[in-house]
Amino acid sequence: MSKSISIFDTTLRDGTQGEGISLSADDKVKIALKLNALGVHYIEGGIPGSNSKDIEFFKRVKELGLTSKVTAFGSTRRKGSVADQDANLQRMVESGVSAATLVGKSWDFHVHTALQTTLEENLAMIYDSIAFLKQKGLEVIFDAEHFFDGFKNNPDYAAQVMTKAYEAGADWLVMCDTNGGSMPNEISDIVTSLTSILPDANLGIHTHNDCELAVANTLSAVQAGVRQVQGTMNGYGERCGNANLCSIIPNLQLKLGYDCIGENNLRNLTSTARYVSEIANVNMPVNQPYVGNAAFAHKGGIHVSAILRDSRTYEHIEPEKVGNKQRVLVSELAGQSNIVSKAHDMGIEFDPSSEKAKEIIGKIKELEHQGYQFEGADASLELLLREADGQLQELFTFESFKMLVEKVAGQPVVSEAFVKIKVAGESIYTAAEGNGPVNALDNALRKALVQYFPTLKEMHLADYKVRVLDDKDATAAKVRVLIESKNIESSWNTVGVSSNVLEASWEALVDSMRYALLGQITPEHVSETQIPQGLVNH
Amino acid sequence: MSKSISIFDTTLRDGTQGEGISLSADDKVKIALKLNALGVHYIEGGIPGSNSKDIEFFKRVKELGLTSKVTAFGSTRRKGSVADQDANLQRMVESGVSAATLVGKSWDFHVHTALQTTLEENLAMIYDSIAFLKQKGLEVIFDAEHFFDGFKNNPDYAAQVMTKAYEAGADWLVMCDTNGGSMPNEISDIVTSLTSILPDANLGIHTHNDCELAVANTLSAVQAGVRQVQGTMNGYGERCGNANLCSIIPNLQLKLGYDCIGENNLRNLTSTARYVSEIANVNMPVNQPYVGNAAFAHKGGIHVSAILRDSRTYEHIEPEKVGNKQRVLVSELAGQSNIVSKAHDMGIEFDPSSEKAKEIIGKIKELEHQGYQFEGADASLELLLREADGQLQELFTFESFKMLVEKVAGQPVVSEAFVKIKVAGESIYTAAEGNGPVNALDNALRKALVQYFPTLKEMHLADYKVRVLDDKDATAAKVRVLIESKNIESSWNTVGVSSNVLEASWEALVDSMRYALLGQITPEHVSETQIPQGLVNH
Repeated sequence: MSKSISIFDTTLRDGTQGEGISLSADDKVKIALKLNALGVHYIEGGIPGSNSKDIEFFKRVKELGLTSKVTAFGSTRRKGSVADQDANLQRMVESGVSAATLVGKSWDFHVHTALQTTLEENLAMIYDSIAFLKQKGLEVIFDAEHFFDGFKNNPDYAAQVMTKAYEAGADWLVMCDTNGGSMPNEISDIVTSLTSILPDANLGIHTHNDCELAVANTLSAVQAGVRQVQGTMNGYGERCGNANLCSIIPNLQLKLGYDCIGENNLRNLTSTARYVSEIANVNMPVNQPYVGNAAFAHKGGIHVSAILRDSRTYEHIEPEKVGNKQRVLVSELAGQSNIVSKAHDMGIEFDPSSEKAKEIIGKIKELEHQGYQFEGADASLELLLREADGQLQELFTFESFKMLVEKVAGQPVVSEAFVKIKVAGESIYTAAEGNGPVNALDNALRKALVQYFPTLKEMHLADYKVRVLDDKDATAAKVRVLIESKNIESSWNTVGVSSNVLEASWEALVDSMRYALLGQITPEHVSETQIPQGLVNH
Repeated sequence: MSKSISIFDTTLRDGTQGEGISLSADDKVKIALKLNALGVHYIEGGIPGSNSKDIEFFKRVKELGLTSKVTAFGSTRRKGSVADQDANLQRMVESGVSAATLVGKSWDFHVHTALQTTLEENLAMIYDSIAFLKQKGLEVIFDAEHFFDGFKNNPDYAAQVMTKAYEAGADWLVMCDTNGGSMPNEISDIVTSLTSILPDANLGIHTHNDCELAVANTLSAVQAGVRQVQGTMNGYGERCGNANLCSIIPNLQLKLGYDCIGENNLRNLTSTARYVSEIANVNMPVNQPYVGNAAFAHKGGIHVSAILRDSRTYEHIEPEKVGNKQRVLVSELAGQSNIVSKAHDMGIEFDPSSEKAKEIIGKIKELEHQGYQFEGADASLELLLREADGQLQELFTFESFKMLVEKVAGQPVVSEAFVKIKVAGESIYTAAEGNGPVNALDNALRKALVQYFPTLKEMHLADYKVRVLDDKDATAAKVRVLIESKNIESSWNTVGVSSNVLEASWEALVDSMRYALLGQITPEHVSETQIPQGLVNH
């Protein structure tokens, strides 16, 4: 039995059915290039003619010379019509792809309720549509919608649908768990039944995650004999999402001995997954398996001392195999070995028994006691460690900030901020408005610094979180602010704590900019001519 | 074979190992009450004596009279020592729980590498610790760490560990896939092996989600014969999280015919899951299976017209069975019956077909679209409904507020607020300082109102939460503020939304005071002598 699995990615089609996922033609091209580089076998690009984005995508993708096969998606011909006059099928051919994904009904209930036609007409619709596409020279992947629900309800009819598609020349017969309601043992049993009915067909699997079983159901189907897996990057898709290729591919390759995209490409899995989440502008859950930021992160003290001895003690694979890496989280639950190993990762060597190490560990513990949480704020921790190691020069001297918010009945709220700092001996006083107080503060500080440090233009704040630490005193309680910042290459997290939400935000903002400028020249080295004098307030 | 499954929740212990999850003693008490109401059989509360939060939790939880058994977590005695002198074991007993979760090693590699002791000593550590806890009258749940990795590496030793624990009197033997690296078929095979070695033991399963298979692995184990399932709400936990009880429970009850928490409690699953995510202040992924906001959301087109004919066409279960609901993203049809029934609960009767009902439903939908969430803010919803029903008179007229925050280097930050309102025809202008901007605003508003409504003295703000709704623009994004207020008898929740955190806080603050004064006399009825004139600004 062959151990090669064909990977069919439908991020660009089924993935965009997910709530909050919307991709422009340009986004789609960027993602297609990355998927091609990752080595997936099929890239389903969209529905030709359904909207202008997809039309543009199919036009542009032809020029790219991808190794992956690009496929166009469409339904069987309309009931009571003729395939070669069906506008949908014609657009699939005209899109210029070499492979088509044709979806058809295989659940008798759906034929009656959704299509409102007869079981015989549905079989004819499937046969005619596939025969038409084959005659036009396309490879045809037949997606049997609701195949498992159909098989449970009327196994004979579901099998007839697949037999008909096979006879019409479909290259792949894909069983879809469209509603995501099947259990792994049902998937396994039904795939086994179909393999005995059509032993020579190439079978595929397409699952949804409504029971949190899409990955398991896919593995079940592969173990029962299917050779094509349909899914999306990060599991994007309607309702609870499609099967997540970012988990399926490493499970198949590293755990079950199948070959999908090869060992080398697998090392690009994490960066590809994160790239797609950036383009889709959707936060990747930190705890996402294999590729998430916390997938190999360790928090407990005992766990940390064990992984420092041997990472196999608490890691099921070497993170590098999927391009991810080990992280040690610093928290009150953890001990000093965490901090020393964290520093080591940053290239800072502390002898754990030295005075310097004890001092910085004491300081971090004290800050954590005050409510700082460095496990979500690696950049702030790195600044502290580099400072303790004597590596940091302050970029500016803080003098004051002021923040004013005013709301008058019937008028929009107004937020203003005023920032006074000293850079390279010069006093700078800036004012800015904002959408809210923190935005105004960000704008005013940026205005003051960007003259000296133009790279700040390339960074922006990507996420802002506030957590009240102790609800006993409610609005007088301490708050912790976490800020995520990004530039083109990377993202970093900083933290601030205060009983005043704006002071906490200020701290996190300042750290975020200090981190962005790590390794930059200090302002003393900026020549006078580089500083626009008009903006410097003497 | 029994079809009852015992649900063991470890959100409060293993769940807090998740990145970004940090729970105060108060948070833990709140969550324990909800888990108890949901009907889980065991609530693992934490590690007694490990930190002050857990000590406080175990003290407070004893007073609550929960039906769920609360368990304390701890490791086997130290190597080369005696169980009844082991500080950890003693603290488990002293915590006052009736059940203890004892974790021990079952992977020979870990015994050597992490414990650095002999296989024999590890067996003795397990035996002695269980025997000690049993002798103190505790129910003992033995968690065999890395059981599956252990069994794969050295099946004899892993089996010896379980046999030893069984002989020592452990009530439950729980197989842990600690690193989350096992495949469902491996889980099934190994559970089957153990059931044949110890046919009379009560077996349990504890899985992690590193391969996105924690739910599937749990189901595999149950189908192979285990009768206790360990997991967390929303799958919180170290690295990629623990097995998600919010998916496991409905899969077991609705799909596989097991009984866990009963049909009625299952209807509270969604609200419980969302409550826990609110307390943990972690965004619930919209696409979370069963309980997520998009779990039964349909994005339009063909799917929507099909589900309007028959929801079974694209829904694997009726969402109401888990307390969730269908959402049609393009239609305003959903939710109206909810609002009418919610109003009914508050004693307000709306005829669903009346103009008044349509108007208020339209208003609530529009507010929800803007980012308001009334699920966590019943008091704000009640105010809206009573207002629509003509029951509310405004207590005051808003004129303006102003907020100033100033920080000068080396000095504490200063927050001041100025509030101008009109009560009973009188203009009032107050100023107040605060620990932070929202506290200053609260103080200034309270100062203005308390003269007219002395009962406001009895209420205070109990919790304050901020959530960024849309991280695309970071500090310019919309924020939702949730405020919990309390008086001696009760607590209530209000909401505000704005791109300005202070405006959102103001809205929630005002609602909180309006709700506190529901049913109070209106200010017109306060006699002149009751108003201290000195505080009224003409």
